[in-house]
Amino acid sequence: MSPAPHNPNISVDCVVFGFDQDELKVLLIEQTRGPKEKVVIQYALPGDLLFKNEGLDDAAERVLYDLASLKGIYLKQFHTFGDIDRLHAAKDQEWLQTFREDPKARVITVAYYSLVKMDEYEPQAASFAGKAEWVNIEEVPSLAFDHDAILSMGLERLREELETKNIGFELLPKKFTLSQLQRLYEIILAKKLDKRNFRKKLKNMSAIKPLSEKQKGVLHKPAQLFTYKDD
Amino acid sequence: MSPAPHNPNISVDCVVFGFDQDELKVLLIEQTRGPKEKVVIQYALPGDLLFKNEGLDDAAERVLYDLASLKGIYLKQFHTFGDIDRLHAAKDQEWLQTFREDPKARVITVAYYSLVKMDEYEPQAASFAGKAEWVNIEEVPSLAFDHDAILSMGLERLREELETKNIGFELLPKKFTLSQLQRLYEIILAKKLDKRNFRKKLKNMSAIKPLSEKQKGVLHKPAQLFTYKDD
Repeated sequence: MSPAPHNPNISVDCVVFGFDQDELKVLLIEQTRGPKEKVVIQYALPGDLLFKNEGLDDAAERVLYDLASLKGIYLKQFHTFGDIDRLHAAKDQEWLQTFREDPKARVITVAYYSLVKMDEYEPQAASFAGKAEWVNIEEVPSLAFDHDAILSMGLERLREELETKNIGFELLPKKFTLSQLQRLYEIILAKKLDKRNFRKKLKNMSAIKPLSEKQKGVLHKPAQLFTYKDD
Repeated sequence: MSPAPHNPNISVDCVVFGFDQDELKVLLIEQTRGPKEKVVIQYALPGDLLFKNEGLDDAAERVLYDLASLKGIYLKQFHTFGDIDRLHAAKDQEWLQTFREDPKARVITVAYYSLVKMDEYEPQAASFAGKAEWVNIEEVPSLAFDHDAILSMGLERLREELETKNIGFELLPKKFTLSQLQRLYEIILAKKLDKRNFRKKLKNMSAIKPLSEKQKGVLHKPAQLFTYKDD
């Protein structure tokens, strides 16, 4: 079966965040361009042109499924980017000339952000992209197109929703300690939090509940485990 | 000068809220279709196709400027709608066949919401639309295309931002009483608020400050006036 034809003017791009207990990471794909002996590598957010018969959310889900064979993960549209010159940089045009039928077409991109539990997730090369890999949020190089701005707004949205919508559990294992939860907040918000104030705030957070279990296999005194309530 | 050519696949639509001290209103435009003697009127959100050389925010600003000759009002992108069949209803196709070059083209629309002080604003017919008018949010009829869904999400966003970002002042006159502010919250949130709790919450809201002025020309005891701080 030949692939469904693309809509040349609309794409989706995904800011996929993961947390490995110690670092906040974002999933990037490699774009290679230039001749074999002088290949240049640039990083970009995973994304693709929309198929003509495909909804926006469906396209974002397809991109993530192709990269990870994962379905049903947290995925939310957050902004659409449509600057006229967003694809015009010479380096980006060089890449587009190899991979797109109409490299000069104006493309408007609908950006999604996604949260994944890194221990359940193994990135892989996808039909629309080269190698995919996790990169520490503090070590992200300058990205293709306007992806720096997209990543920056995605991170801003993650910070807002962490405070207003208790979405932290999407990044943690099912069972976690309060220290792990605090560490997640500290890393995403990029600031140290006072332990007592943080725990006081948690008391008002009806979203988490204590389990009748403690940590196993740790050298220090095992800590109480918690989980997020389903609703 | 002939008008700039449109991009046939991208539009903007605007959910414009106004508050007249007593009702939350939304700005709608009239779409007329059918023969003169049997004209059918349908309401829609103001919107238009993007010009080929125009940014998304610029397009939303243009739509509002054309309707209101107003610039610099609160305007924020909140969601992009791209369902495949969003323009397919027979009634909508009939209207599109009169007004669009390619009525069957798939159009993705970027939705904005806007807050305006109604006393500074007089809607008028625009190049892309018929009559424009304010309609009470509780009396909005079924709208064209997927505009019911767009309005509904715009209202949801307004409620969220009222609570998290103190945007209420965009809808109030520069100087207002606490009763007016409470009424605004009650109408937008569609629930009665306890006066004492509301004022306690306001004490924690550093965004408003008392003025050394009281209401004038009222029959009851004049109330203290407040204003929002600039930042």
